[in-house]
Amino acid sequence: MPTGKLVSKEVAMATFSDIGVAAAINILGALGFLMAFALLRLQPINDRVYFTKWYLKGARSSRTHSGTFIHKFINLNPRSYLRFLEWMPAALKMPELELIEHAGLDSAVFLRIYLIGLKIFIPITILAFFVLVPVNWTNSTLKNLNNIQYSNIDHLSISNVPTGSPRFWVHLAMAYVFTFWSCYVLLKEYKIVTAMRLQFLASVKRRPDQFTVSSCETFVLVRNVPPDPKESVSELVEHFFLDNHPDHYLTHQVVYNANTIAKLVNEREQMENWRDFYQLKYDGNPSERPTIKTGFWGLYGRKVDAIDFYASKIDKLSKEEATEKENLIKNPKYIMPAAFVSFGTRWGAAVCAQTQQTRNPTLWLTEWAQEPRDIYWQNLSISFVSIIIRKLIVAVAFFFLTFFFMIPITFVQSLANIEGIEKVAPFLKPLIEVHVIKSFIQGFLPGIVLKIFLILLPMILMLMSKFEGFVSLSALQRRSASKYYIFLLINVFLGSIIAGTAFEQLNSFIHQSANEIPKTIGVSIPMKATFFITYIMADGWAGIAGEILRLKPLIFYNLKNLFLVKTEKDREKAMDPESINFATSEPQLQLYFLLGLVYAAVTPFLLPFILVFFALAYVVFRHQIINVYNQKYETAAAFWPDVHGHIITALIISQLLLLGLLSTKHTAKSTPLLIPLLVLTVWFHRFCKNRYEPAFVKYPLQEATMKDTLERATEPNLELKAYLRDAYAHPAFKKGEDDDKVAGDEVEIETV
Amino acid sequence: MPTGKLVSKEVAMATFSDIGVAAAINILGALGFLMAFALLRLQPINDRVYFTKWYLKGARSSRTHSGTFIHKFINLNPRSYLRFLEWMPAALKMPELELIEHAGLDSAVFLRIYLIGLKIFIPITILAFFVLVPVNWTNSTLKNLNNIQYSNIDHLSISNVPTGSPRFWVHLAMAYVFTFWSCYVLLKEYKIVTAMRLQFLASVKRRPDQFTVSSCETFVLVRNVPPDPKESVSELVEHFFLDNHPDHYLTHQVVYNANTIAKLVNEREQMENWRDFYQLKYDGNPSERPTIKTGFWGLYGRKVDAIDFYASKIDKLSKEEATEKENLIKNPKYIMPAAFVSFGTRWGAAVCAQTQQTRNPTLWLTEWAQEPRDIYWQNLSISFVSIIIRKLIVAVAFFFLTFFFMIPITFVQSLANIEGIEKVAPFLKPLIEVHVIKSFIQGFLPGIVLKIFLILLPMILMLMSKFEGFVSLSALQRRSASKYYIFLLINVFLGSIIAGTAFEQLNSFIHQSANEIPKTIGVSIPMKATFFITYIMADGWAGIAGEILRLKPLIFYNLKNLFLVKTEKDREKAMDPESINFATSEPQLQLYFLLGLVYAAVTPFLLPFILVFFALAYVVFRHQIINVYNQKYETAAAFWPDVHGHIITALIISQLLLLGLLSTKHTAKSTPLLIPLLVLTVWFHRFCKNRYEPAFVKYPLQEATMKDTLERATEPNLELKAYLRDAYAHPAFKKGEDDDKVAGDEVEIETV
Repeated sequence: MPTGKLVSKEVAMATFSDIGVAAAINILGALGFLMAFALLRLQPINDRVYFTKWYLKGARSSRTHSGTFIHKFINLNPRSYLRFLEWMPAALKMPELELIEHAGLDSAVFLRIYLIGLKIFIPITILAFFVLVPVNWTNSTLKNLNNIQYSNIDHLSISNVPTGSPRFWVHLAMAYVFTFWSCYVLLKEYKIVTAMRLQFLASVKRRPDQFTVSSCETFVLVRNVPPDPKESVSELVEHFFLDNHPDHYLTHQVVYNANTIAKLVNEREQMENWRDFYQLKYDGNPSERPTIKTGFWGLYGRKVDAIDFYASKIDKLSKEEATEKENLIKNPKYIMPAAFVSFGTRWGAAVCAQTQQTRNPTLWLTEWAQEPRDIYWQNLSISFVSIIIRKLIVAVAFFFLTFFFMIPITFVQSLANIEGIEKVAPFLKPLIEVHVIKSFIQGFLPGIVLKIFLILLPMILMLMSKFEGFVSLSALQRRSASKYYIFLLINVFLGSIIAGTAFEQLNSFIHQSANEIPKTIGVSIPMKATFFITYIMADGWAGIAGEILRLKPLIFYNLKNLFLVKTEKDREKAMDPESINFATSEPQLQLYFLLGLVYAAVTPFLLPFILVFFALAYVVFRHQIINVYNQKYETAAAFWPDVHGHIITALIISQLLLLGLLSTKHTAKSTPLLIPLLVLTVWFHRFCKNRYEPAFVKYPLQEATMKDTLERATEPNLELKAYLRDAYAHPAFKKGEDDDKVAGDEVEIETV
Repeated sequence: MPTGKLVSKEVAMATFSDIGVAAAINILGALGFLMAFALLRLQPINDRVYFTKWYLKGARSSRTHSGTFIHKFINLNPRSYLRFLEWMPAALKMPELELIEHAGLDSAVFLRIYLIGLKIFIPITILAFFVLVPVNWTNSTLKNLNNIQYSNIDHLSISNVPTGSPRFWVHLAMAYVFTFWSCYVLLKEYKIVTAMRLQFLASVKRRPDQFTVSSCETFVLVRNVPPDPKESVSELVEHFFLDNHPDHYLTHQVVYNANTIAKLVNEREQMENWRDFYQLKYDGNPSERPTIKTGFWGLYGRKVDAIDFYASKIDKLSKEEATEKENLIKNPKYIMPAAFVSFGTRWGAAVCAQTQQTRNPTLWLTEWAQEPRDIYWQNLSISFVSIIIRKLIVAVAFFFLTFFFMIPITFVQSLANIEGIEKVAPFLKPLIEVHVIKSFIQGFLPGIVLKIFLILLPMILMLMSKFEGFVSLSALQRRSASKYYIFLLINVFLGSIIAGTAFEQLNSFIHQSANEIPKTIGVSIPMKATFFITYIMADGWAGIAGEILRLKPLIFYNLKNLFLVKTEKDREKAMDPESINFATSEPQLQLYFLLGLVYAAVTPFLLPFILVFFALAYVVFRHQIINVYNQKYETAAAFWPDVHGHIITALIISQLLLLGLLSTKHTAKSTPLLIPLLVLTVWFHRFCKNRYEPAFVKYPLQEATMKDTLERATEPNLELKAYLRDAYAHPAFKKGEDDDKVAGDEVEIETV
């Protein structure tokens, strides 16, 4: 939980033994989670919780069908308990190429972020312990001071070096070494990920059963089609592309506003589910046809035959759907000014996606089409001017959210006290006045409001991003991640270092000179080392160990299984595979890069804790990606530029803070030498942006040509037009049509 | 001369009568220049100085041929002197479309900058005088203070409003009105210029005699062709584009490093000039063949027949040129990794210029080819990595130049004193010790060093831009202009407001809090109004009037005419048409926008002076563009986004300074309301960037298609390949070949 500010700050002055105790508690906690996981995952009843991915792939069938009744739920084989940590090597065993094949490139590249953490921090830790720790340790500044403000951890930190000491040259040199090493790793990694992405894009095969990135390669998303009273959107699009891309245009699909149909489809599915349930019931007991009451939740009303009732309902809904669909296609009101245009060749699509179509660059906006699964359909119709106004509103709103979020929370906290509750609900008064309950509420309520806000925060940020008008889920995730990163940076990292709310900080920073700000923060940094160590252990170690246990899905699955699961399809649905939530996990993870880089030159003692986090998280997430998570879409690692940018931001912040810290140590000669490092880092970022980012935005023509040529050679008679016909139908359309097929598929899987 | 800092600052406390005197002096000076111009331009001998453009266009022939001897040099017609201001309406008469036809779009759009000045500041001035002046005037703060620090101009300024007065709401509201009006004008103008640019690009016809923008439309400049040991650059380019643009690739031209040839061509031209001179001499006096001495400058050595001597020299050089050319084409060492690729259709070229070609975005870089005249050939071979390193170096160098340029100048000044000169050149000692000379040197030398630096500054900035690796002269100009703008902003504008060098300012700003900086500057602003008024009159009024006199070209032309002109071709060459030097005139001009916007809400009294500047400059430059300047290349107003950006910068600076000024006036309630204005202005800039800038970078496919279709319909049998064959030959190549033809053309013009 990234709630640094909320965790009591009294731990800041902890000693070695305090940290030892905290470490012991957290290690025990983490071990407890891991043990619980090792035990629970062996129980057949939890199989679908801990091997969700394999069920979804059809490679694992329900184990509840075989063996005795008890074996369905509990694993009685004692030998399997002895190997309770076997998942760890198993998780590491799968080679990366197989992992990409199994879980997609996004997941494989996401894991590389943890690997980068290890690659950056293992050498830095070794170097820091061999060079910086002796340099810091062999002073006696703190001993002489005899100041209780300092704990013995600080003897290993930069605080122990006397002001004006020439030893600060060592820290300066190390800052250079750390930065160069981090940049080297980042550069190499950017190169590798770029190559992986291009390789992935080039190698993925067309599969009719699943729309992969590859099959969208010939698609371009066109937005802001200008209205024309004489022609429909579809005609407009066709004429425009026949005029301007005559040799390559193949066909197009307009985008419908299909929210009504989506609602009908949902309703129908629910009805089908009930029908299946009663059908099963009837199959099990053919002597009696099941009946239901037509009233609310079947609690009252006329008794009717259940199967017939649902069958008629389904029939009615299907008809409604059909008329609605016709309506949609006929009524131009439902047609959005957007279309998916497909081209005969990848070359033609690559050209159309990268070029400006008309004089007015805000009309006929073309861009590479995302995977159909990745599209956020609601935003396809937003016009350019509207988007630019929305961006302004969100920027302002996000600024206020980041710096002033404490104001509404304080307000709600002031309402949510004993008196407030008594006023709203006087009948609770006797209960509340009980001493135990009263003190509980008083201690608990103020915290819970903030807690609820922090849980809701990612959702608020996602809503903001949606309002900004991004058209793909992956872009929404990336955008939310950036917002969350800034929020964590200001409210957790800076908020933990400097007391006071973000607004108070902002206010004091405005009234401080530009070179005072890094000083103010820099000076507090060594003092907060112990606090961040405990934070890493609580959030990083125990938190990650908790992740593998999947407590929430475990409980929900078992509850659903007990009460709600009526059919096999329901059981399928009760599984919650989750997926990597980039919008929250990436920023939280970036906080560790920031801590590691900031403390590398200041308090190296913190580094091993970060290393343990990265190693543990790598194994845990690798396991989850192999066995549990099911990515909803594939972007071919489109998020990498963001990840890279965030680490560079952390580097720059670490340099600024070291600059501030050193400038308070009377080292006027050496400190300005950090400025070239800053300039070089910014320049490195620009270099990487120019050199590697285009691979994540554009599709090089050479690649397109090569793939076109290959396809023409291998499949000369491919009927692309028919193949692409319905690739970009609205999910509600597709769902309606494919539904029976999907159900059939699932049954098939079940009986394997 | 933008040397605000150097002009004595004692004028800051001037009164109305002081300004009256200064105005009188400057108006007299300006009138003197205008009178001198009116007289000089009527003299036939100066005709080529004041009507250069018409001579270059061949629409005006030498007047020196006709009439009596005295009429050749002096106009004796008294009636023509009576109409000495007739050039003003004449300059305004030519309609804009004809102006574009006559002088190109660049010049026509450059004039629009002055028009924008008028459009923005006329309503602002009227409003300020009707609203702000009464609001300021009807206070008596300054009268009560009885402080000699304030002049009576300040009674009209914001200084006269007592602190904490509710009247500041008026200034705040006016700041909003001024900003909205400026943005409205800017938006409208961006729209108009964009339309003009696209119209110009669409309408310019192919002319074989002159490579206009239009004929380059099917060309793409390719840089960073990767080296290949097996193939030559030419083969590589051909194979690559045949592979990746098979339907559109037509032909290409590789780029040679032709510096040696350029040198030879220059030498040969000089020789030809001498030969013509002696030939003319011989024609005039056929009885005696002219002879020269072969030694240095013909001062000593063997006497030979001059015509034969030069003929043989020319012959030798021509042969050398031929071998060198063969050498160039054969030797791959001289071939740069760049090429101009032409396409069969504009569509194909537009596509190639806008797309990424290969996986590595730093190889096979494609961009729209500039006009052949606009290309800066030396930079075509610089690789991507080299460019990004050069950019870093230049950024650092420019930072030091801007903030620390006074250090070397002070150093040189300390050397360039009497003692220094006596040390270096002891023989001058008796001369220097003369009292008058000594005091002259002591008073003059320190100033001259700075003066020389300021004259050299645009050249230094241009060298920096060249080092950065831009491939077109126009881009170099734009880049230098931006650098110069920043330099003027910091060293002239801020430097005049706050005493001390830029470095001292920087140092004090670093040690000041973020909200103190605008305050410090803002408070000084009203006090500097009179200084800037005198600055506007000296630099803006008299300077612009001096521009029309063309004193330097006038003197140089007449001197050359007297001593150097040997042939008609020489006379042609002695004309110096000059052209709008965007790199220096645009930033100097932007300073007036900055002053106007900053003082609009503070001291409206300054505005009429700005209005006079814009009006006068508009007329003068319109005249110069019509009659004198000859643009070297045409970019179709590609500089507009820079102009727009600079005005927006001025707007933002004016808002920041007003914010600072108001926050010292105890108006806590109203001042924060300026922050939304800042946000809105930044947002407006982003909107314009998205909406209009693409038209200046990309070539929309629809336009390309339309032009392709039109051309196919009107000229179905066009042999484009032959037509484009040598469009992008290195100027040295072309010069060598076309030289005789050009000379012939010129003779033809002369005899008209």
